[in-house]
Amino acid sequence: MSEKTMQSWTEDPEPLLRAGEGFRLDDVDPRSTPGYEGNKKSGRKDLKACVPELGDLQERLFAAHHDEKSGPAVLLVLQAMDTAGKGGIVRHVVGSVDPQGVELAAFKAPTKEELSHDFLWRIRPRVPGPGMIGVFDRSHYEDVLIGKVRELADDEEIERRYAAIRDFEAELAEAGVRMIKVMLNISPDEQKDRLMERLDRPDKYWKYNPGDVDERLLWPDYMKAYQAVFERTSTEAAPWYVVPADRKWYARLAIQQLLLNALRNIDPQWPAADFDIDVERERLAES
Amino acid sequence: MSEKTMQSWTEDPEPLLRAGEGFRLDDVDPRSTPGYEGNKKSGRKDLKACVPELGDLQERLFAAHHDEKSGPAVLLVLQAMDTAGKGGIVRHVVGSVDPQGVELAAFKAPTKEELSHDFLWRIRPRVPGPGMIGVFDRSHYEDVLIGKVRELADDEEIERRYAAIRDFEAELAEAGVRMIKVMLNISPDEQKDRLMERLDRPDKYWKYNPGDVDERLLWPDYMKAYQAVFERTSTEAAPWYVVPADRKWYARLAIQQLLLNALRNIDPQWPAADFDIDVERERLAES
Repeated sequence: MSEKTMQSWTEDPEPLLRAGEGFRLDDVDPRSTPGYEGNKKSGRKDLKACVPELGDLQERLFAAHHDEKSGPAVLLVLQAMDTAGKGGIVRHVVGSVDPQGVELAAFKAPTKEELSHDFLWRIRPRVPGPGMIGVFDRSHYEDVLIGKVRELADDEEIERRYAAIRDFEAELAEAGVRMIKVMLNISPDEQKDRLMERLDRPDKYWKYNPGDVDERLLWPDYMKAYQAVFERTSTEAAPWYVVPADRKWYARLAIQQLLLNALRNIDPQWPAADFDIDVERERLAES
Repeated sequence: MSEKTMQSWTEDPEPLLRAGEGFRLDDVDPRSTPGYEGNKKSGRKDLKACVPELGDLQERLFAAHHDEKSGPAVLLVLQAMDTAGKGGIVRHVVGSVDPQGVELAAFKAPTKEELSHDFLWRIRPRVPGPGMIGVFDRSHYEDVLIGKVRELADDEEIERRYAAIRDFEAELAEAGVRMIKVMLNISPDEQKDRLMERLDRPDKYWKYNPGDVDERLLWPDYMKAYQAVFERTSTEAAPWYVVPADRKWYARLAIQQLLLNALRNIDPQWPAADFDIDVERERLAES
């Protein structure tokens, strides 16, 4: 982490949030703010303070690579129980950079056509191209989360999918895609409050779905399925991060830092001119 | 225009900017600010002041219609000579609303595959779905602008395309798509300054293309082609607006107003609950 963006961070959150060897989802407090000592107010200020650097890095990435056949890209994968704040991440973190450099893909319940293909079939075409920041709002992980909890596939098929995901993501990493896989970790109590708010406000009804309560009743099963996902698919090339999300402001701040880290690692540079600058100055002056 | 957003506007810019009967592109001063009495500073303030209303209307549009088979959408078409500021409109005007409700399509020189189909073939799949705000960064109009200027098609084919465009857009309007077709009207002198700046700054080289000067040399031909476009394709259902663009801040402000007008006309409402609120409160409380 660079000095100027330390702010109220005491530590780079990246290693703190990473679901590595021995990680236990049960051990995470959804209200905690790993690596950050500030509060909601400083959090908002710090989020804003990092927008210029994020925007600059995104523009460099785009400038350097977006017309290439191959090259680096960033892919933010967002998974979570309902109301955890995926939309807010898209809006307030990703939404702070130039929309022209962002490819957003929201994966809903698969269509009949999608179901007639392998689960990765609908995912592959949405992988961000060189120079882009891609965001998956839900993803191929639905097929080993709801797929497992609702027994939409048997154990053998779920096993096959873990392996297929590892292969797929290794291939993406090889092609230059930096993956940041995030589970927004909300508590059941916080979810209850947020769902109740949707029932209290006519401008929020549209976000409420009775099915959300059905899924909520399966909370422990979902947490088990997430734990299995971390164990089977959190790799060096495509690590999982579990981001405490009961405090929306912290989740936004932390994911902004994860994006910044990924972009700083790519370290994209303004491309050199592929034309003769003096010749062009003259042509332009005469035009 | 609602009272609270009058600000330094003296008039609704919509009728002032519309390329209607008898419109002459030659008559427009690219440095003018039709309907607006403020300056750059007030312009920035006024742009910011309208963001909440634009965001609210966009969210209502999305909430009310995005999962429907048919329904209203907004399509902003951006055409201009190079450096006129299309990117800034996308970033600073469209970029102020929730990215989840926006579909951005940038049309570049057609690929070999695209050229093997009719010119509307690549356009149709990018028309925004119900509840969305679509933006075309360049569009099917390239095929009657560069297509005409560079004689990529003969006169008969250009005539056919005007008619095909009118039919296509009438069909979209019928389906509920509100089109806002904008030509950002920059002066050749201002373009020269902006291109020169790109040659002066290593972080802008990537935006410079020697071909831009070639197009620049054909300026009068392009203006003639635009004039023809307005005469042949500015319809009640899909009007053209010519927005003076030498002052970037004015162009952004004006297009924000055009978007606001379109959304206010649609007047999207929060959808009613399609579930029993009391039953859901109880289910949730017990969960």
